[in-house]
Amino acid sequence: MKVAVLGFGTVGVGVYEMLKSADGLEAGPVLVRAGKDDAPFKVTSMEKIAQDPSVDAVAEVMGGVEPAFTYACCALKAGKHFVTSNKALVAAKGPELAKLAAENGVGFLFSAACGGGVPFLHNMALAVQSDEIVSVGGILNGTTNYMLDNMQSSGLSYADALSDAQKLGYAEADPTADVTGLDALRKIMLACAVAFNALPTEGLLNEGIDSFSADDVAYLRSVGLTCRLIASGGKNEDGSVYAYVEPVVFPGSAAECSVLKNFNMARYNGKNSGRIVMIGQGAGRWPTASAVLRDLSDISCGRRVMMKPSCSVVSANNASCCHSYLVRLPAGEKLDLPIESCEARGNACYVRTGNVSVKQMHEKAAELRQAGVQVFFAAIGE
Amino acid sequence: MKVAVLGFGTVGVGVYEMLKSADGLEAGPVLVRAGKDDAPFKVTSMEKIAQDPSVDAVAEVMGGVEPAFTYACCALKAGKHFVTSNKALVAAKGPELAKLAAENGVGFLFSAACGGGVPFLHNMALAVQSDEIVSVGGILNGTTNYMLDNMQSSGLSYADALSDAQKLGYAEADPTADVTGLDALRKIMLACAVAFNALPTEGLLNEGIDSFSADDVAYLRSVGLTCRLIASGGKNEDGSVYAYVEPVVFPGSAAECSVLKNFNMARYNGKNSGRIVMIGQGAGRWPTASAVLRDLSDISCGRRVMMKPSCSVVSANNASCCHSYLVRLPAGEKLDLPIESCEARGNACYVRTGNVSVKQMHEKAAELRQAGVQVFFAAIGE
Repeated sequence: MKVAVLGFGTVGVGVYEMLKSADGLEAGPVLVRAGKDDAPFKVTSMEKIAQDPSVDAVAEVMGGVEPAFTYACCALKAGKHFVTSNKALVAAKGPELAKLAAENGVGFLFSAACGGGVPFLHNMALAVQSDEIVSVGGILNGTTNYMLDNMQSSGLSYADALSDAQKLGYAEADPTADVTGLDALRKIMLACAVAFNALPTEGLLNEGIDSFSADDVAYLRSVGLTCRLIASGGKNEDGSVYAYVEPVVFPGSAAECSVLKNFNMARYNGKNSGRIVMIGQGAGRWPTASAVLRDLSDISCGRRVMMKPSCSVVSANNASCCHSYLVRLPAGEKLDLPIESCEARGNACYVRTGNVSVKQMHEKAAELRQAGVQVFFAAIGE
Repeated sequence: MKVAVLGFGTVGVGVYEMLKSADGLEAGPVLVRAGKDDAPFKVTSMEKIAQDPSVDAVAEVMGGVEPAFTYACCALKAGKHFVTSNKALVAAKGPELAKLAAENGVGFLFSAACGGGVPFLHNMALAVQSDEIVSVGGILNGTTNYMLDNMQSSGLSYADALSDAQKLGYAEADPTADVTGLDALRKIMLACAVAFNALPTEGLLNEGIDSFSADDVAYLRSVGLTCRLIASGGKNEDGSVYAYVEPVVFPGSAAECSVLKNFNMARYNGKNSGRIVMIGQGAGRWPTASAVLRDLSDISCGRRVMMKPSCSVVSANNASCCHSYLVRLPAGEKLDLPIESCEARGNACYVRTGNVSVKQMHEKAAELRQAGVQVFFAAIGE
């Protein structure tokens, strides 16, 4: 199967190199920007790739919704299989692409868009054929995990942890999508689409780690807890889908605490399989390229579907998921939620709430912040 | 795809039930022993299944080499895909079955034979198409993990932990294969066959947990270590394959320590993907059935090969893998190996060795035991 590659950045180079030695796959032309076509295998026209009868599949690793979406449509309509690592594209246009792939009898897989090198979506797509998936989630953003690990193991401040992650190339110059949880949210959207055949695009909630401070680290350490940024998705009892991202504090013995540096940990709970957890590199040239290559091998063996053409676009319902939260407020500030306990530390107060809904907690924090109150909150994990 | 099931025990019932609601799969006849055919879907003749043109695939969940091997050959020669959970069968006859499957143009998959519900072999079989696997391994026996966890968290003696595991149905009436590491060894043989296209059948080494005592638990706890039974396989620098099972002691922060009860944790290291870790239920009706069903779905999508027909049978070389060991000896007993330190505890002495080869350590322990000396040893993990 000859594979054209769209993009020749960090991941694109990895995909191209791996194609050279993969069983049953072959490297085809690589699409680059005009002026960057400094080698015979590099082309600047997507039309040329679509019209090339020797190209069987297209691997897109450019990122961003456009022009990736236009190129994806062009490839699928030309009867080429389409594999992508682009979570923004699939979160925005996944169901459309799934339909187009089905109409043209070709494959559309996007393992590398969620979990990096962790074979998460692939395994769920296989599992849903015979099992019912109840919930999905985990540590899906390596940048924030690296920062949290660094803050908690080395006592770094948030600012130092961020600048450290940027120096190492884990965080972008603009780290907003990572630190606010938006990147993890896009990934859990895709996981829901694969697991529940429903892509939640509204009603989503994401709390990142940008309110987490070195003082919070000191407090958590004193009570034996470790913070991780967790994405969660699942089915409510009424059949609606929940999907949100928030910090969660775990006791030291929890598996989440052993996920260090920029690693990801993805899990699904199957009605029959039980809890399946997968840990691996969440990003980087070779791990991400290896996920793209596994999808291509999978297509060459006959697997074609990750998101079904029947996948619906739904609104998330985060009002029925309830748990306890740890909330840090300025001393003397009142939290208008059921309170279990309250512990003063310097100028701050750490409150443990009773059972409150995810929606309620996220809205309460937004309300307080609107009033100028600094708040950090995290769910209390098992 | 209509699937006949061979065996109607714990796993067989699970497979049959799951087939009823799986996408693209259908439950066919079930082979049972004569006299057990108390329902129309139960048959007692393998010939009948092989000659039934409506049957596309056979799922074998009986266990044991015979008659499973005869039935497997019969199914494959009749052009039926063959899926099995039977590690004894694949460890003994895998390469033969792989050749037979290729000759007959049908699939032969055995995910459930290693890792139970953990999709370990499946993911490796996909990964090897584009990546080079460097090492494989992990916690592959749920019974011993349950016992170790129980001994270390509740202070149970070995005998009580074993009887507890038996009461819960985790350990067989004859627990020898589990507690001596033989079961884990068979699983790592299969993992090597998938990862390295070489099934090691000689030169294998297995040390189980049957020398591990409550006193060892107390010592390990005092130095912050936790014991797990780990299977390891990989490629030596000279291209030969190593494969062995032994207890390993880890610091509390290691991911292995968060694997509790009867869970499995399987990992592979890919040259490109890096370290991929998978955790899930290692046994039980539904987890094991879910692995069988995933293989069947995989075959229905076109995947056919887990062990290649070219898979060779090799002798393991465990002389080149070296690490430090913790060895418990009776006080005053001499250990003829490079020694780093020695700590007396009651009537015992805990020795930490320098770098010694796996072969050397296992042979030394056998030698001491032959001389009537009671020994426990474990590799010192990262």
